[in-house]
Formats: sequence, C-alpha cells, structure tokens
Amino acid sequence: MLYLIGLGLADEADITVKGLEVVKRAERVYLEAYTSILHVGKDKLESFYGRPIIIADREMVESSSDEILQDADKVDVAFLVVGDPFGATTHTDLVLRAQELSIPTKSIPNASILNAIGATGLQLYNFGQTVSIVFFTDTWKPASFYDRIRENASIGLHTLLLLDIKVKEQSLENMARGRKIYEPPRYMTVAQCAQQLLEIEQDKQEGVCSADSLAIGCARVGADDQTFACGTLEELSESDLGPPLHSVVLVGKRAHELEKDYLKGFAINQDTFEASWKKYHTRP
Amino acid sequence: MLYLIGLGLADEADITVKGLEVVKRAERVYLEAYTSILHVGKDKLESFYGRPIIIADREMVESSSDEILQDADKVDVAFLVVGDPFGATTHTDLVLRAQELSIPTKSIPNASILNAIGATGLQLYNFGQTVSIVFFTDTWKPASFYDRIRENASIGLHTLLLLDIKVKEQSLENMARGRKIYEPPRYMTVAQCAQQLLEIEQDKQEGVCSADSLAIGCARVGADDQTFACGTLEELSESDLGPPLHSVVLVGKRAHELEKDYLKGFAINQDTFEASWKKYHTRP
Repeated sequence: MLYLIGLGLADEADITVKGLEVVKRAERVYLEAYTSILHVGKDKLESFYGRPIIIADREMVESSSDEILQDADKVDVAFLVVGDPFGATTHTDLVLRAQELSIPTKSIPNASILNAIGATGLQLYNFGQTVSIVFFTDTWKPASFYDRIRENASIGLHTLLLLDIKVKEQSLENMARGRKIYEPPRYMTVAQCAQQLLEIEQDKQEGVCSADSLAIGCARVGADDQTFACGTLEELSESDLGPPLHSVVLVGKRAHELEKDYLKGFAINQDTFEASWKKYHTRP
Repeated sequence: MLYLIGLGLADEADITVKGLEVVKRAERVYLEAYTSILHVGKDKLESFYGRPIIIADREMVESSSDEILQDADKVDVAFLVVGDPFGATTHTDLVLRAQELSIPTKSIPNASILNAIGATGLQLYNFGQTVSIVFFTDTWKPASFYDRIRENASIGLHTLLLLDIKVKEQSLENMARGRKIYEPPRYMTVAQCAQQLLEIEQDKQEGVCSADSLAIGCARVGADDQTFACGTLEELSESDLGPPLHSVVLVGKRAHELEKDYLKGFAINQDTFEASWKKYHTRP
C-alpha cells in the first residue's frame, strides 16, 4: 500500500496518531521536501519516528516515481507531505501512477494552510480561490495572479496568497554547465509579496490592490510562534515577520463585523486599520 | 490556557500527537458536538484519551461559554472540535470571550473537509467560496446559496457544498410547550442535496446547475470507507452513498484535464460523464 500522509504545518508532533502508526511500520518512508517545509529538520523527524527518511525532491517525485512505488503492492510505503497530501498537484499524479501499477493507495489528511488560515479569525466560507505568488525576476514578472485576485475581489471575497519557495534551484550558469550546484533556499516574505503586489498594481492601475488595502501578513501558521499582522499593503511592505513560511490574506469587501473584531487584535496601526476598513469594508 | 484542538474527520486516531498530549493533561475536556460529527462515539474517545469528556452543545458554547472558560487562566481546558477548530464561526466568539477574560488561548489545527476534499483529485486552488446547504421545509426554501454558486461558476471555479446537520432540534410543538424533547439527528445526503439544487434551478431557471451538470458526491471523507461518486446532478439525486457525513462538489468549468483523469475513476456512468465534461468543461 502507498500511504500519503499529511504532516501538518509546524513540527514532528503535528502528525496524526493514525499517520504515526503507519510511519512506524512502513518499509520505506519518503519526505516530499519541495512544496513546503516544517520547522524541524530531517534528523528531528527521524528520531521522533524511530525510522530513516528518504528525502524526495521534485525530480524524484515527478520523474522517478516508480522508485518510490517499488514493491508497494507487497509492502507499505509512506510518502510524507507537509500540510495535507493533496495540497499540491503532483501528488495526484503519484496516485494515478500507483493505480496504473495496481498499487492500492490511502491518504491520511492533516491541516493545510488552506484551513489553518482560519486562525486569522476570517471565516473560511468567505475565501475565494487560493492564489500563488512567485518571485519576480528582472526579466520575468508573471502577473496572471492579478486577474485571480480581481475575480475574488469582484465578489467581495478574501484571497489567500501562498508565497513562493525556491529550493534546489540552480543558477543559470550552473545549469548551463550541467553543474549540480544549488542555490541556498529562498522563501518569499510578507514584505516581498506586498511589494510585488504594489508593483503590479502600479503597472496595471486597475485598483485591485491599493497601497491602503487591508491585508494580513501570516508567519509560521500553526506553530507556537504563529504571527499575524494586519495592515495596509504599504505597511506590510515594510514589515518583518521573522523566519518562514509566510503567507498573505487580502481582506475582501464582504467582510463581517465579527471578522473585524478579531482582526483588530492583530492591527499594526489602529488608525490606518480603521480608516481602511471604513473605506473598503463597510457594507452599504 | 484554553486549547482549541482539531480532531480531524473520522475517528479517535485522527487527533495529532500534539493535540493528544494536551487532552491527556487538561483539567477539563469539552467536545463540540453540533457543527460536525466523528464516526465514533464519546465512549470511544474517552477510552482512547483516558479522560472524561463533557459534551458541549450549541446552547452551552453560545450562551454559557463562561462555564467552559472557568478557571482557564489557571488550568488547561481542552475544547475539541471535529475537523479544524476554526471551521465554524462560533469558535472565534469563544476565543474573543477568552481574550476579554485575559485567558490565553492556543489552537491546534487539523484536517478539515475544506482541504481533505482534495482527495477528489480536484485542485484546491480551483475552488471558490464554500457554500452551506440547509434542509428545505414546506414553508422555507432559503436560496441565497444559489447566488453564491453562480458567483463561483461565473469565474469557472469548483464549489464545495457543506450539507446541513440537525442535532438536538425540537419539533415546533415541543418548542411551543417548552418541552426539552429532541428529534433524532438528521444529516443531509448527497441525493437530498442534488434534489434541492434541481428544485431551485427549476424555480429560477438561470442555468446555474442543470440536471446534466457534473458534481461529486462525497461520503465520509477522510475515513477508511471514504466514497466518491462523480455524476450528473440527476444521477446523484438517485444515489445512495451510505452513512453520513456527506458533502458535494460542483465541478467548475475551468477544470483541468488532470482533474478529469482522476475524476473518471469515480464516474457513476462513463458515458454521461464524458458527455457532460464535453458540454461544460472543455476549454476553448
């Protein structure tokens, strides 16, 4: 059996009791390590599980999945995913491949940023589609996310922005020369995301996200030092919420007074918070 | 400290290791028992936790929350919620009330239907706002959900429908006479939901959900006997997916071929599935 097991968001103790039982008895244990990260390293997980872990990078999962699936018709293989197993697309690929090979699969769900974001006090019912924000480069500023945000905003919904993670990236030079040397990992911050949003807004001028729009900077959601900061995009573009992972919520116009009461507790500046709320979020 | 602890979706072993540690040492343990249910009873949880559980109904949580919060500035109180603690609005109320009383709070996230629904193979990025469907009565057929579905559909997104749960409801007669006699619990089925959608569509005639629209009937998501059935609303209106909880996903027009490949495995009828896909989901 192939088990896809969600690890939750913060550390080794966020696995479910059910998931832990499978890990302890599985023949091989893989950790998917490119779409998200825990706040603890492989060593910590190995000592908690009492089992060795094989790190599965994108190349292995997308191109060498048969290596992961080897003998999984006879033995149990655990494939660990930070958050929930179905947060990232490529894992449905892995399940489809297992089905082709007549390998039974089972998934053990866990918290994902998509529901843990409810800890901001915003109602999960009021979120539209989730949007990914990738790092801009000097030559590449993909802006399709702007249209997605506009779609949500047009019906008054909140938007959760998931911020780019770059792990095991090669520099152009190393790639050209075929050198398997990787850059240090990079995790987009709330400030970088806010800056990119304001940059795109300045290009497009369609008023989808203004300097005084309210957003919530979220850091290490689900961990003991989980941090939320609610402020304007301008304020957040100068914020420092500490170590990764970060994400951002753009607050929709249809927001409710109860949501406001909760957000107030995270406001960077009560005056700008009230002003922006009054401007954008007061129902007619 | 007040701990809000997610229990996940199916049984006693879906709690996280971190959550279980808190339950085992908490002074009092409450189980919120009106917005969702596990597939195991209170007895099973009590024997697994080695702790007595106090059932918290809606009245207690909404009107007598100070009873739950009593002494929580000095001792640890665990408030258990099926799924994730912030799936339902009233729990942000509880946290706000704790803050007023200077009681520190902490939440321990877990899987919610909002992310576990990814097991259908549909990409979580492609979902719009989540919508609740309540039981129609002879005299009351609230239809605001129809507008919410239309909003999602207009931008091509999937819609997760959460189906009504009636627990501890009184008949009008018992309520009038002040008798605390409660009706047996009722859980809306996929078939009932599909029937209500078709009924509203017939009233409104706006083409938001047609008899041949594709949807996924979902039963017991996250449990060992989790079941998905993908078919037209007409097919689903005659389906029987077994015991609760059920939910439904309306498939959005922007659906991807990879999502189709996965859904095909759950199709009730390959011919109607292909026909509906071709009619509604083929990108130009």
